[in-house]
Amino acid sequence: MNKNRLEAFSDGVIAIIITIMVLELKVPHGEDFATLAPLWPVFLCYVLSFAYVAIYWNNHHHMLHTLHKVNGPILWANLHLLFWLSLFPFTTGWVGENHFAPGPTALYGVVLLMAAVAYYILQSLIIESQGEDSLLKRALKGDWKGKLSPALYLLAICAAFVSQWLSLAIYASVAVI
Amino acid sequence: MNKNRLEAFSDGVIAIIITIMVLELKVPHGEDFATLAPLWPVFLCYVLSFAYVAIYWNNHHHMLHTLHKVNGPILWANLHLLFWLSLFPFTTGWVGENHFAPGPTALYGVVLLMAAVAYYILQSLIIESQGEDSLLKRALKGDWKGKLSPALYLLAICAAFVSQWLSLAIYASVAVI
Amino acid sequence: MNKNRLEAFSDGVIAIIITIMVLELKVPHGEDFATLAPLWPVFLCYVLSFAYVAIYWNNHHHMLHTLHKVNGPILWANLHLLFWLSLFPFTTGWVGENHFAPGPTALYGVVLLMAAVAYYILQSLIIESQGEDSLLKRALKGDWKGKLSPALYLLAICAAFVSQWLSLAIYASVAVI
Amino acid sequence: MNKNRLEAFSDGVIAIIITIMVLELKVPHGEDFATLAPLWPVFLCYVLSFAYVAIYWNNHHHMLHTLHKVNGPILWANLHLLFWLSLFPFTTGWVGENHFAPGPTALYGVVLLMAAVAYYILQSLIIESQGEDSLLKRALKGDWKGKLSPALYLLAICAAFVSQWLSLAIYASVAVI
Repeated sequence: MNKNRLEAFSDGVIAIIITIMVLELKVPHGEDFATLAPLWPVFLCYVLSFAYVAIYWNNHHHMLHTLHKVNGPILWANLHLLFWLSLFPFTTGWVGENHFAPGPTALYGVVLLMAAVAYYILQSLIIESQGEDSLLKRALKGDWKGKLSPALYLLAICAAFVSQWLSLAIYASVAVI
Repeated sequence: MNKNRLEAFSDGVIAIIITIMVLELKVPHGEDFATLAPLWPVFLCYVLSFAYVAIYWNNHHHMLHTLHKVNGPILWANLHLLFWLSLFPFTTGWVGENHFAPGPTALYGVVLLMAAVAYYILQSLIIESQGEDSLLKRALKGDWKGKLSPALYLLAICAAFVSQWLSLAIYASVAVI
Repeated sequence: MNKNRLEAFSDGVIAIIITIMVLELKVPHGEDFATLAPLWPVFLCYVLSFAYVAIYWNNHHHMLHTLHKVNGPILWANLHLLFWLSLFPFTTGWVGENHFAPGPTALYGVVLLMAAVAYYILQSLIIESQGEDSLLKRALKGDWKGKLSPALYLLAICAAFVSQWLSLAIYASVAVI
Repeated sequence: MNKNRLEAFSDGVIAIIITIMVLELKVPHGEDFATLAPLWPVFLCYVLSFAYVAIYWNNHHHMLHTLHKVNGPILWANLHLLFWLSLFPFTTGWVGENHFAPGPTALYGVVLLMAAVAYYILQSLIIESQGEDSLLKRALKGDWKGKLSPALYLLAICAAFVSQWLSLAIYASVAVI
């Protein structure tokens, strides 16, 4: 399996995910700006998800940069990551339609967490495939962000049931980091 | 016809198919987790279809790896395969919406079977184009999986009318193999 | 403007057009095969449009193969062709939903005709840009198919108001040629 | 970050945006040409947006042509531009559905303006990264179009509340320029 084709396929899927999310911004029936008002949570959530998918695309690129040979487990770990990313449009739509209600906000975090776990698995498999002198391993030395973010997602999922604004603030902070 | 363009176009179509399937997971109206409950068959079916499309993408890549020159019949056999793959979102949506009712479950198998047949035709045309020393032919020697899966799909289509769970179990087993 | 990027962009747009057409095949509410019955015109029309888009992709590739340098008019003529192709999902959906009623069947032909005209304009501009020794011009020598098809589309558009089946037969024949 | 991957990803997103806009042209329920009548504003707006996205794709290509190395700010400025472009299908749909009512027509201009601003930011960052001898800077010398268009968008946004036809005429003029 050629690395370039894996990269091109992943890019294609990510480009489609980031674009079809906008279809959740349903065109309102009415011509006043007032009819746009109920859409602002969807819009806010779209901005957040757009940023997340963009970050994944960016990081994914850097990670694959160090990769030389694609093996079976790496291929499937990559598809596993794409699977969780493909659920972003769904959770974005659900959060937006329910104005950041606790349930949808928590589920949004669950999908973020699973994507982070999938990313971590892919990372570990690439490091493993590179052996002792892993370029990626060295690049990640002292990378506390990667380890912190799953913990923060977990915190945000729980926080969603107390205050969804706290939860959202955590999601946004992780993206900024 | 250049092999790379055929590959890039197929990858593009497959990337879109795998991603638009998620649009069948309609955002529920309601903020409770309970409103997600009717979605689990769609989700389960989405996971299965995602795995199938990913397997086809992977196998398709390996098959094209051995190809040197694209001729007319290979081009059309490839488009024929993409046609059946493009029906996956439809059958996935129908099975999911009807909670694995016998009819949709059987139709799901019919499309899987047709995609397998289309794949077989493409494979045969590539082998034929490679002549005596076909690299692909040698690679497939002793490949009992390719021959077994159509038979299993047929079995699963019939099984759908007896027990859809048996049918689903067969579909999942073929994917795992 | 690089030829490869023009080709890659066109391929991307065509891959998306061919795939989103399947979204017009709406998942029926009901689990019987009988609920599929009203869908057969949409399906038939989807097959026809899939074949047409595939033919355009194929011909487009061959035409661009002879091209060396992309200039402004060629770029815009190419976008003009993509514009008409992008209307295929709409006309396919309208014909299918109205079971080949005369109006939609005629409009389907109008879009086919406009795409053929756009293709012809692109072809002429490429020939012009190649000067006297145009490779494409020589390749097209004696190509009566390209000249016949617009006439047949016109005939089919008129035929739609007499008998839509005659009209459809003409569309299918042009695709086979 | 490799320039080719940035270009390929941007092309993918732009190809999807230009194509999913057609989904706003909803298939009418009815077989008469009369049922198409309410669609003409959507169609007109689709043509305008198609032209705008095509122009952005074209200009984006020329701008990236002069770029050698992608840095962080350029990467994010590019994603910022793609974000505003991704809102085109939404505003196109809203304008079309409300027959060029003042509110939607103004919002259409706001998104156009934001995309122009995002484009300008990206341009400035690329010029900055190229230093003194910026190829792009020299290419843009005397480019009054780039500076005029934001002013015209602003004018058109205000004009929308007086006469939406004036507003539309300005949008169309900017595209033609």
